[in-house]
Amino acid sequence: MMTNQSEFVRPVPLDRVYRILNIGPTVIVSGKTENDFDAMAAAWNTALDLDPAKAVVILDKSHYTRKLIEESNYFMLSIPTRSIAPQTLFLGSVSKNDEPEKIDQSGIRFLKDVEGLPDDIDLIEGCAAWILFERIPEPHNEAAYDLFIGQAVGAWADERVFKDGRWMFEEVPQALQTIHYVAGGRFYAIGDAIDVE
Amino acid sequence: MMTNQSEFVRPVPLDRVYRILNIGPTVIVSGKTENDFDAMAAAWNTALDLDPAKAVVILDKSHYTRKLIEESNYFMLSIPTRSIAPQTLFLGSVSKNDEPEKIDQSGIRFLKDVEGLPDDIDLIEGCAAWILFERIPEPHNEAAYDLFIGQAVGAWADERVFKDGRWMFEEVPQALQTIHYVAGGRFYAIGDAIDVE
Repeated sequence: MMTNQSEFVRPVPLDRVYRILNIGPTVIVSGKTENDFDAMAAAWNTALDLDPAKAVVILDKSHYTRKLIEESNYFMLSIPTRSIAPQTLFLGSVSKNDEPEKIDQSGIRFLKDVEGLPDDIDLIEGCAAWILFERIPEPHNEAAYDLFIGQAVGAWADERVFKDGRWMFEEVPQALQTIHYVAGGRFYAIGDAIDVE
Repeated sequence: MMTNQSEFVRPVPLDRVYRILNIGPTVIVSGKTENDFDAMAAAWNTALDLDPAKAVVILDKSHYTRKLIEESNYFMLSIPTRSIAPQTLFLGSVSKNDEPEKIDQSGIRFLKDVEGLPDDIDLIEGCAAWILFERIPEPHNEAAYDLFIGQAVGAWADERVFKDGRWMFEEVPQALQTIHYVAGGRFYAIGDAIDVE
């Protein structure tokens, strides 16, 4: 399924970012500096504002990714699909503090040759959408609650599953469903569409 | 399905509350004072801490419910199921500022005769779980971001669908699935279980 995912990646208008996060997916949070990269899984996230689009993500002090975000002031929230549930769990279970080769070992890969994508943006293969945030520094929240706030500065989605500001799970293979973590290796995939008139 | 839901309601240990919120459901936020009650829908929420259990919910300044929470210092997050998707959308679409009879008009009802439930706790029928939070006042967050933080002081769940700290959607009728709002009247229900070894 993920062969050639690159050709389906399209930019998302920032005022539609909240709709990506609204359904409450588990996300992969990543941070990078000139010489380093790390990614972790986070069920604890929410949209925070429509326009300019903002979001909240909770990042424990022990996480290696957090240090990179504090250094670079940017973080990416990527929305993993069912196709990479094992890799997502690995990213949430293993720390780069203990395992410097975490990213290689996780099995995640990055999309190549995405048309129009800036050179410094890396998109994790097998995600449904990717949102780049600039951190809004809030020292009290970060220290007291591990709560980070960001404003979206770029967003992309796989147009097979998110297009024109709408999720379209009912039209795609199960592999493209978002995943919602509970505990103990158990996720739930997103399910049926329900339209209330 | 919801006939006699009262008999299935059980307390949830507070250190398991995060698992209720982990899957990212849309919630019903309610607040009450001695003489008033209001409830609204909110897709923007997240668990914030394990133990003591905390959560974040975003409450715009225009919401009537927010005023009640600011006055009482408590709020309830209830997790609506597919069985009350229309009522949930109504609670998220109509403001008590405009419609004083909102709650009656919404069609929501409250459970009666839940064994062991304190008299001052009202549980909305058709939800999968209910979590009562004491607000942790954070004036900057509330003013700048509409971001409210609470610490859980009580939690209950319908044991058919959440028991021993685990969601059990695979064992219950569709009507008990959580719902995850996008926009325009469109929700997605929670779907398949995925267990990563």
